[in-house]
Amino acid sequence: MEYFKITFQPGAVEVMVPQGTSLMDGMNEAGIDCDFSCGGMGKCGKCRVRILKGASGATTDERKLLTKEEIESGVRLACSVKVSDDCTVELLFERNGHKILLEGQDMKIKLEPHVSKTCVEVDNPSVKDPRSDWQRLKDAYSGGQDLEVPLKIIKGLPELLRDANHLVTAVSFEDEIIGMEKGNTAGVNLGIAFDIGTTSIVGYLMNVATGEVLATVSTLNPQTKFGGDVISRIAYAVDEEQKLEKMQSAVIGAISDLVGQAAKKAGVSGDDIYCMTVVGNTCMHHLFLGINPRYLALAPYVPAICQPMVVDAENIDIKINQAGKVLVLPNIAGYVGGDTTAVILATEMDKSRDVKLMIDIGTNCEIVLGSAERMYACSAPAGPALEGAQISSGMRGAVGAIDHIYFTKQQVEYTVIGDVKPRGICGSALLDAVAGLLELGIIDSGGRLAAGAPGQFWDRIVEQDEVPAFLLAAGEDTDHGRPIMLTQKDIRQLQLAKGAISTGINILMEKSGLEMSDIKEVLVAGAFGNYLNPHSACAIGLIPKELENKVKMIGNAAGVGAKLSLLSTGEFRRTADIIRLVDFVELASEANFTEVFAQTLNFDQRRGLGHD
Amino acid sequence: MEYFKITFQPGAVEVMVPQGTSLMDGMNEAGIDCDFSCGGMGKCGKCRVRILKGASGATTDERKLLTKEEIESGVRLACSVKVSDDCTVELLFERNGHKILLEGQDMKIKLEPHVSKTCVEVDNPSVKDPRSDWQRLKDAYSGGQDLEVPLKIIKGLPELLRDANHLVTAVSFEDEIIGMEKGNTAGVNLGIAFDIGTTSIVGYLMNVATGEVLATVSTLNPQTKFGGDVISRIAYAVDEEQKLEKMQSAVIGAISDLVGQAAKKAGVSGDDIYCMTVVGNTCMHHLFLGINPRYLALAPYVPAICQPMVVDAENIDIKINQAGKVLVLPNIAGYVGGDTTAVILATEMDKSRDVKLMIDIGTNCEIVLGSAERMYACSAPAGPALEGAQISSGMRGAVGAIDHIYFTKQQVEYTVIGDVKPRGICGSALLDAVAGLLELGIIDSGGRLAAGAPGQFWDRIVEQDEVPAFLLAAGEDTDHGRPIMLTQKDIRQLQLAKGAISTGINILMEKSGLEMSDIKEVLVAGAFGNYLNPHSACAIGLIPKELENKVKMIGNAAGVGAKLSLLSTGEFRRTADIIRLVDFVELASEANFTEVFAQTLNFDQRRGLGHD
Repeated sequence: MEYFKITFQPGAVEVMVPQGTSLMDGMNEAGIDCDFSCGGMGKCGKCRVRILKGASGATTDERKLLTKEEIESGVRLACSVKVSDDCTVELLFERNGHKILLEGQDMKIKLEPHVSKTCVEVDNPSVKDPRSDWQRLKDAYSGGQDLEVPLKIIKGLPELLRDANHLVTAVSFEDEIIGMEKGNTAGVNLGIAFDIGTTSIVGYLMNVATGEVLATVSTLNPQTKFGGDVISRIAYAVDEEQKLEKMQSAVIGAISDLVGQAAKKAGVSGDDIYCMTVVGNTCMHHLFLGINPRYLALAPYVPAICQPMVVDAENIDIKINQAGKVLVLPNIAGYVGGDTTAVILATEMDKSRDVKLMIDIGTNCEIVLGSAERMYACSAPAGPALEGAQISSGMRGAVGAIDHIYFTKQQVEYTVIGDVKPRGICGSALLDAVAGLLELGIIDSGGRLAAGAPGQFWDRIVEQDEVPAFLLAAGEDTDHGRPIMLTQKDIRQLQLAKGAISTGINILMEKSGLEMSDIKEVLVAGAFGNYLNPHSACAIGLIPKELENKVKMIGNAAGVGAKLSLLSTGEFRRTADIIRLVDFVELASEANFTEVFAQTLNFDQRRGLGHD
Repeated sequence: MEYFKITFQPGAVEVMVPQGTSLMDGMNEAGIDCDFSCGGMGKCGKCRVRILKGASGATTDERKLLTKEEIESGVRLACSVKVSDDCTVELLFERNGHKILLEGQDMKIKLEPHVSKTCVEVDNPSVKDPRSDWQRLKDAYSGGQDLEVPLKIIKGLPELLRDANHLVTAVSFEDEIIGMEKGNTAGVNLGIAFDIGTTSIVGYLMNVATGEVLATVSTLNPQTKFGGDVISRIAYAVDEEQKLEKMQSAVIGAISDLVGQAAKKAGVSGDDIYCMTVVGNTCMHHLFLGINPRYLALAPYVPAICQPMVVDAENIDIKINQAGKVLVLPNIAGYVGGDTTAVILATEMDKSRDVKLMIDIGTNCEIVLGSAERMYACSAPAGPALEGAQISSGMRGAVGAIDHIYFTKQQVEYTVIGDVKPRGICGSALLDAVAGLLELGIIDSGGRLAAGAPGQFWDRIVEQDEVPAFLLAAGEDTDHGRPIMLTQKDIRQLQLAKGAISTGINILMEKSGLEMSDIKEVLVAGAFGNYLNPHSACAIGLIPKELENKVKMIGNAAGVGAKLSLLSTGEFRRTADIIRLVDFVELASEANFTEVFAQTLNFDQRRGLGHD
């Protein structure tokens, strides 16, 4: 899979995306508001951009909506352009100020940066005024009020004060002065928010005084070379102390590199960044901090720590200002990490009087149900099917992947990422395929393929290894010449994934005593969530059918949570309240787990608890 | 000058002393109470000790006071034994509990150690109780109350809890947990107090839970190789950054070595020491912390910082437990440092309703005058005369130095350190000589030698370089065969020293508006102070004559202050109040400085302000 860089202007916001990703999806990834009326169908023409570098031809839709002059000057629709090279894109549509994603989600935030800067004019010493350097600084800064004394600052203070003609800027975190700069630098106050995913790391460099995103950067998590998923990384890390250190340095190094890239892009110095927030699942959290994740993999799967942490940048060798602070969002449990806390923060479920259901889809699927009153969370072991893995023709959501499948009256239609001949199906297409075939009666509620009476598309049923399979794309239509099929085993894999998620939802419903009608909104988070067709998800019962019209895709809400925590001490403090508000439910230890799981494997279940 | 080690038992309290020092002076140096009725004249017989190693013959006095059996079993009087080799000494007299020096000064102290240790039995995790390791610890330790989270502890916590079967001991400093030990170690709570002098460093390893001194250690300050006094060290340090680092490492290394020695002696591990207090003059303070002392040597001589500091041991690489804390006592001004603050703490001048005058004698002589209401402090540049330097026959208080001189009717008698033939005179003898000759009329009030009519001892007046000198010891009586003399120039040197100190006292009196009769006690601190004959000091007017019967020698009170600060958070906090209570007076900037100084050069001045 090849990745390309999109640079959005103004602001030099940058993201790495797989080949074939639309500019609109890239904008979403970059945190740029792109909530247009047609939803990215190429119909409304609002998502005008100008391609400054990396041109591509206009589609039919675009020719209808754009003038000839526009097309000639490089104007295109962001939803219609698929990335096939590094490109630079100018955003032409009106944006809602700076706090794009936050306002895009109708969030208002009071800027209360963790770090503040105060320019101080210090008295000159004299024989008549022999106060110590520190005392003169304190008197000017805080009227002499006692302050924590950082040795590092004291060491440099005499020279600094005299070099600076006694005009300096104090950098403080909470009540502590952490830095002292020459002259008046109070106008520059930067922070960087990081979302450390198992697969990729995204950073947002921000002016914390204004809330503006100055640069967005991302990279693959270099820990992938030690294992693709959390479990294999834990297995690697616990082997010996050195390996843990190696994994920690890998992620710290990658983050420090991204800090450097972001600073360069924004034309600032990494030393101007005094604050960083970090969100990640519990395993990423532990590896980032150098905490052995051994016990995350052993029952009862307890983390070393949940509560929010503030760590000195120099203690973990992160290359922001060495006096800076790294704020790490709190975990909820061993398999419900700070990323979920960040999603709750961003979606304000903890402030909502309405009950909401949040599903963050991945190999481990975090589910949160509740409101400001109480929330319940669990981690459902959905397995890799939804990410296209362990599926006969499965693949990740990369170029060549069928991402959506539509059953029209006559045909099986599909779209392919990168507009190339298909090579396989990704998770969203798997969902579409099963949902469609279920509605057509080709799959029965028990998940059996070709169990009923023959009918439409029956000609596509083929036999494979003595069990039936459904032909999605014939060999002559594919990139590799082999047919792309949906096998009985694939359906079983999806059933397991769907069963795990449904079980999670059902057990949380039971724990909370809530009814389906209590749920006012279903929030689907995560990269996969953005491709997912809500109708398909509901059709197979992954999301309860009753909730179909309440489903809302919220994209990388964890990243939004990281940004909010960076911009506001109040928001960061709220994370501690959030984790207290959430009851973690360990699915496997629930008495009725097996029963519920068995029931939810069927595609026609509604509540799964035998209520209907 | 050769140094020997005395080890006092029980307790393995150890000091290094110059050859010829009496065991009693060694005890005083080691902080062992030795305030006996005859004052060390070999008359009361109370200071019985048994020499376990390093025997020496008994003196006549001892034969009178000790039985033959006692003498055969090695019993001696501490005041009569001069050290001529490393020795081990058992203390036989009754000691007043453990807090010897403190109680010797009638001090009561409430033990409130900075570091506390709490044994915690932590719940085991289970599927029904998946609280994080840290949460389970917190719940057991503080009922779940929020605590600062030290990353280092979290990193090791999962393994530690399981290794320790969930029984651990939390080590805390203020509200912060700084260490976590396996099992129950709450019974071991150690600290070490250091007095960093320009010349020597003394450390006291203490059980902070009981106040017991477990070991006393000392060494020469290795910075002496960069310069003997404060000014030459500053000159060396400011030259380049590397030299400052070199000087810091030298003192840090010496202290770390002493920590190791003290721990070994007491049979404990250096890792069991979590707290250290440090007192020193402002220059030693700055060099210890790696703060450039450049501006201490440039007018207006301001320190980088005065207030009390708490520094992480690992940040300055001090070899106590790496999670431990180093507490540094606050300075009062550029030339009145944390050692003076410690003396005020130990003498409780800040709590006293009575006005006291404290003089800490050295090259720079710190003077403090006042009471709980208000105190005034200055540093008087006494110069090195009182330490025997820049005196024609002068030397330090080492072996071969005449330390005391008595003018009897017929003779000039003297005592020599080490009971050898004299090689020179140290500061106390200089004082005795001038005081005696002044009383005999051989020196006039203007300091002129042989100005009056010839009389007793007039035969000892010799001519040297065309000015008169007084023969203290003839060549045939000295070690080197050269006569030991007091020259006119020596007298002038002492006049300058005395003038500086008197000026300091007089200006503080004036600033404070106090009368001589207001002063209830004169406290003379410092190593030199212990040798000084109060009568001589008053006879020459170094201490006002009216105060002669109020003079009290208090020995190394700075070391006592360091110990008090180690044993009690309240005492350490008091140091911050003390420095606020003290007004620093910069002598040189006082308008009447020159006038007062000129007046105080005369030996007959009383107040020096022209009042009489």
